[in-house]
Amino acid sequence: VRTVAGVLEAALSRLFSETVKITGAGRTDSGVHATGQVVSLITACAMPVERMELALNSLLPADCSVREIRIVEDGFSARFSAIERTYVYAILNRTQRSALLERYAWHVARPLDLEAMQAAAQQVLGEHDFRSFCTPSAAGSADDPASTVRNVTRLWIERRERFVRVEVAANAFLHRMVRSLVGTLTEVGKGRRRAAEMGSILAAGDRSAAGPAAPARGLYLAGVRYARGYDSYDEPAVFCRRPTDA
Amino acid sequence: VRTVAGVLEAALSRLFSETVKITGAGRTDSGVHATGQVVSLITACAMPVERMELALNSLLPADCSVREIRIVEDGFSARFSAIERTYVYAILNRTQRSALLERYAWHVARPLDLEAMQAAAQQVLGEHDFRSFCTPSAAGSADDPASTVRNVTRLWIERRERFVRVEVAANAFLHRMVRSLVGTLTEVGKGRRRAAEMGSILAAGDRSAAGPAAPARGLYLAGVRYARGYDSYDEPAVFCRRPTDA
Repeated sequence: VRTVAGVLEAALSRLFSETVKITGAGRTDSGVHATGQVVSLITACAMPVERMELALNSLLPADCSVREIRIVEDGFSARFSAIERTYVYAILNRTQRSALLERYAWHVARPLDLEAMQAAAQQVLGEHDFRSFCTPSAAGSADDPASTVRNVTRLWIERRERFVRVEVAANAFLHRMVRSLVGTLTEVGKGRRRAAEMGSILAAGDRSAAGPAAPARGLYLAGVRYARGYDSYDEPAVFCRRPTDA
Repeated sequence: VRTVAGVLEAALSRLFSETVKITGAGRTDSGVHATGQVVSLITACAMPVERMELALNSLLPADCSVREIRIVEDGFSARFSAIERTYVYAILNRTQRSALLERYAWHVARPLDLEAMQAAAQQVLGEHDFRSFCTPSAAGSADDPASTVRNVTRLWIERRERFVRVEVAANAFLHRMVRSLVGTLTEVGKGRRRAAEMGSILAAGDRSAAGPAAPARGLYLAGVRYARGYDSYDEPAVFCRRPTDA
């Protein structure tokens, strides 16, 4: 299977003439866009970073690119040093689908009730057990359950022209957590579930209590935050402008 | 060759159980995005338009979609009744290219001087002979020259975050006219040409006087205007929000 990590490691290994292993801040399933992904690696190469950026992007295929390279302190890990990840989910909310956005947004034809979705989102904020919103394998086995407690620090839903944009940040995410949250919030937006149900879905601790996962194509790993200020953020191009005061 | 027109005619012919020929408002070369394209056709089918829209989009492949269908008066032609076409050109203006935007914007690494580009654009506004900004075949032969006079009613350049967005409207366009204008304006933005040169390029009446054409991938046929109010407009998704007061 061709993966972004594999493509990147191959280009880096060629650039540095040594075998390079990378560590990514967040996992992205097939079809998910990693616009704000951060990876870390160790190399003996002393090339200036500006030259490294240009050389790497010229070695990478058209569907993979690097925005910036930085030198970091010893012990830094893109994964373990991260204190917050931000995902953005794009819903195209109008009657007709869009050919150009086919791979970049989820098309939901029925007008979504944003107030209801925002009310539901309020109940998810903060530290909770998100077992109901992840794939069963992420919750571990009955003998050896994994901790499924996560801290959602931001869950912001807004309309931007023909889109509904969902932004969710947490210390870390479980597998399929964002897509399960968005899928369930969308059921609230369609009037199929009441906003007040979110609390009982969380309390159930059972994946079947929540709605289906939203498709991968609308999901973007937009940003990663670090204590030492190596933050990344790249708004999906379908939105382009950031909210002016959010 | 697979074309949008061909794909659309095949789906319409299937939907209406008759051979359908469409007329498009504007030609789009391979790689150009036709977000605001309008086509007209004649059919005996009396299906309600809402059902027609849903049925047509379900027959079309994922990379082709229709936003709206309207019933128009006799004699209407998407092409001949159009009084103005609007094209939008997307330039990704930052050091590093973007994998996700590869097919949707032209990457120009050098920072562009927008004031110089705007000054150059001023000289193009209005009615001129655009022979210098079209493919030679569009200008006809020496024995039988075609009219290359067009009226540019709007040429607006602005920065939107990492993008430079060029919007150009005219009564009609010559083949490659927008891409030749954008390519030349970009040379001004890079400091390779002076803004004041635009007048002499127009006066030269010679394609070689202008800069190279910008690539097709950044170009969008965004809108078409009609005297009877059947206007279309669809901002490319890479920008999403329209200027608030432009």
